[in-house]
Amino acid sequence: MSQSIRVAVLGAQGRMGSAACTAIEQAEDLELVARIGSSDHLEGAAEAGAQVVVDLTVPSVTKRNVLWAIENGIHAVVGATGWDEDSLAEVREALGGSPATGVLIAPNFAIGAVLTMRFAEAAARYYESAEIIEMHHPDKLDAPSGTARHTAAAIARGREAGGLGSVPDATEKDELGARGAVVDGVHVHAVRQRGLVAHEVVQFGGVGEQFQLRHDSFDRVSFMPGVLLGVREIASRPGLTVGLDGYMDLG
Amino acid sequence: MSQSIRVAVLGAQGRMGSAACTAIEQAEDLELVARIGSSDHLEGAAEAGAQVVVDLTVPSVTKRNVLWAIENGIHAVVGATGWDEDSLAEVREALGGSPATGVLIAPNFAIGAVLTMRFAEAAARYYESAEIIEMHHPDKLDAPSGTARHTAAAIARGREAGGLGSVPDATEKDELGARGAVVDGVHVHAVRQRGLVAHEVVQFGGVGEQFQLRHDSFDRVSFMPGVLLGVREIASRPGLTVGLDGYMDLG
Amino acid sequence: MSQSIRVAVLGAQGRMGSAACTAIEQAEDLELVARIGSSDHLEGAAEAGAQVVVDLTVPSVTKRNVLWAIENGIHAVVGATGWDEDSLAEVREALGGSPATGVLIAPNFAIGAVLTMRFAEAAARYYESAEIIEMHHPDKLDAPSGTARHTAAAIARGREAGGLGSVPDATEKDELGARGAVVDGVHVHAVRQRGLVAHEVVQFGGVGEQFQLRHDSFDRVSFMPGVLLGVREIASRPGLTVGLDGYMDLG
Amino acid sequence: MSQSIRVAVLGAQGRMGSAACTAIEQAEDLELVARIGSSDHLEGAAEAGAQVVVDLTVPSVTKRNVLWAIENGIHAVVGATGWDEDSLAEVREALGGSPATGVLIAPNFAIGAVLTMRFAEAAARYYESAEIIEMHHPDKLDAPSGTARHTAAAIARGREAGGLGSVPDATEKDELGARGAVVDGVHVHAVRQRGLVAHEVVQFGGVGEQFQLRHDSFDRVSFMPGVLLGVREIASRPGLTVGLDGYMDLG
Repeated sequence: MSQSIRVAVLGAQGRMGSAACTAIEQAEDLELVARIGSSDHLEGAAEAGAQVVVDLTVPSVTKRNVLWAIENGIHAVVGATGWDEDSLAEVREALGGSPATGVLIAPNFAIGAVLTMRFAEAAARYYESAEIIEMHHPDKLDAPSGTARHTAAAIARGREAGGLGSVPDATEKDELGARGAVVDGVHVHAVRQRGLVAHEVVQFGGVGEQFQLRHDSFDRVSFMPGVLLGVREIASRPGLTVGLDGYMDLG
Repeated sequence: MSQSIRVAVLGAQGRMGSAACTAIEQAEDLELVARIGSSDHLEGAAEAGAQVVVDLTVPSVTKRNVLWAIENGIHAVVGATGWDEDSLAEVREALGGSPATGVLIAPNFAIGAVLTMRFAEAAARYYESAEIIEMHHPDKLDAPSGTARHTAAAIARGREAGGLGSVPDATEKDELGARGAVVDGVHVHAVRQRGLVAHEVVQFGGVGEQFQLRHDSFDRVSFMPGVLLGVREIASRPGLTVGLDGYMDLG
Repeated sequence: MSQSIRVAVLGAQGRMGSAACTAIEQAEDLELVARIGSSDHLEGAAEAGAQVVVDLTVPSVTKRNVLWAIENGIHAVVGATGWDEDSLAEVREALGGSPATGVLIAPNFAIGAVLTMRFAEAAARYYESAEIIEMHHPDKLDAPSGTARHTAAAIARGREAGGLGSVPDATEKDELGARGAVVDGVHVHAVRQRGLVAHEVVQFGGVGEQFQLRHDSFDRVSFMPGVLLGVREIASRPGLTVGLDGYMDLG
Repeated sequence: MSQSIRVAVLGAQGRMGSAACTAIEQAEDLELVARIGSSDHLEGAAEAGAQVVVDLTVPSVTKRNVLWAIENGIHAVVGATGWDEDSLAEVREALGGSPATGVLIAPNFAIGAVLTMRFAEAAARYYESAEIIEMHHPDKLDAPSGTARHTAAAIARGREAGGLGSVPDATEKDELGARGAVVDGVHVHAVRQRGLVAHEVVQFGGVGEQFQLRHDSFDRVSFMPGVLLGVREIASRPGLTVGLDGYMDLG
């Protein structure tokens, strides 16, 4: 029988961290060996024998955590945002001295959001038109969402690879701005509606047809399958990987 | 056996007029007795014994056509746009001298668009959030669509009747305009996509739920059931009616 | 300043009852004066001065609760199911002796579900085709849902009022049963999917067009606005009302 | 300047063949050199100098056409269905003697349908639940559609690759068959609605989330981009290819 993977969660008291602890405890092949909060020492994870740390902390401490994990030969699955090129370079350099260790930095652990972006890029070259509608709860402060911006960039790459020019749009009169934002040449619309959580629709159009991708996130637990996928795969993926799609088999 | 209703089409050579001729010919209870084009005399309709004229001409001649029909005691089902209050007053005055005659002026003959507007007004008072997404082919010149503007106005009336204030929206940062147009306090988004014709989605949101109305018009023949409804009902509806919903049983 | 309405919840320890207590406490115009569980005396509600009881108990005790409320001149908003004609007749007779008291028995407090049923009935007469797709979590034991059955019945009434015959369907070969259930002449499809809660889509089709109604219930809190609507309106609606739509302005 | 590709259409008088002729004529980089109907000799295509034939005939003659094309060193893009393994083996053998010639046999030229199948297979391994809803006009004779059956098979392959077992479904009571057809372990629902043409929705569900793929075919012209893709690519793809996805870059 295979042994379970020993996991410590950093940022265990936050909303994501707490959900991750629950998900790891419920997984039969994983064992939660430490919950490290902001007032705990990282050493607690090493002392508990963690093979993988899941870092769900904040931008100000995540780099320090990752460098510590590499130094201790512990794999790191990282959800915190705010990583810039310089920080990634530091991680790569540290990994040079620990070639068997893996680090996965994933700005989005929702598998459906990752699928939407990948499939949007692949489909984009085949359709004359492409637009994005993202929908969130009305307490969100910014528009459009980061996921929608990344999806627009993916569509733009797909259109360029397919040799497509601008999307067709004969609009001459739109003084109220109904056509929405334009991100990398793609129109993006942001809906804010009570009762919704996080949703994204990508619509492609050609003569006589439409193709759509849609992802609905109803609850933060929807991020957990992506976290667990990272934890299970990381031992076989040494080095730095950015983006969960690097771990997925998307044929 | 009941006799069929005798109908003449004015503007019979236009796209809508031509579709109306076909629809009337295919209806068992209706008889197409005259196709009047821009170079024909209106008298052709009277001489052919028309009981109802369907006016699908242009703003510059529609009023003259309607007044002529009233004078001849012929009911008029009118799809042309561009009617102002003064013109409607003229029609009412003319009808005073012909009290059995009916005139229906309908800016939109798509039954689904009429249902969407009516139901949107009725539902609006029950939901904290309401937004509209209209989608059309990319050759459309203006945004948002007239139907979306009318629907926004209907939602605003419903919200006011229900004592609701502004829709919730915490957006602080939207430099690209992703939140779209605001019409009567309702956010309206316009999508332009090859392969689409005319589509409208109305989304309502409350805590833990969503309610949606959607109308898809794939072809101009979708206007014909509304035209035929008008032709069949007009004899029992003397006087001026504005809007197809006046003829519908929406209890 | 108007005084708040004094409310007691019967069945306060159940999932719905507990959600109702929270919703009443959060409403500024309502006061929660008693939480009556299965081991408490109903008199506790009267002693606490309740003007309205919200009954979210089980079929075996709900009738007794309602008759007790009427006897005490307390209005009753009732969510329990399992009422038959005989029980309703008993309630009507009891109300004869207490003409100022109101009783609302609502099998479904989700406003969106009520709107869907009402609008479906009104729209049905205008469309040749009508189908229902209901979608729920995969732990649901029965298919199709009760709400879908009621909606099919509403569509059937609308079609009959509009003089429509059977829906068109040329299917000759369907050995696997892909066309789904037929309820009152309407095809009903049941989807069971992890992550969903309770969703209903009603699709109408005519030549060249489609009209849709959709209700998504993401959480049981979505029933609370309907409960509160009942509590607020009941004092002005003496007698027995069955169905939340009797309290709604669906003009 | 590159020369245009010389194309002949076999089955030019059918609905698909006639649409293909129009599409080829409108493409700047293609030249329609022959329209071969059922009473014409195939030699007409060779005499006109066709480099590619598009075969949109019927199962009884398509194999003969393809073998003739190979013998003449003309590439063949084939939409006719009804090919079995024996016939494909004959084509492969014939191609052995003409190694530079390409044959593409595509049961479905709608790019969106091909994308839906491919993405469905890739996504299936990541979701506990998967169901298919296909929607067509009510004159369709069989249910479910062939495309839906193929998509179910693709999902089943994806689930197997991901080590998933059966979809969760606690349904105990469904005497009317609302849960639909089961194809390769996947529930498939068939909607028949006036106004629709050919539509497919694939829904995946996991805890707290949903992922959807949707393809809408509003008109048979939606098959033409797939036909043109085949015509343009075939010279660089010698040998037999089955399925349009073999020509697509789905990364």
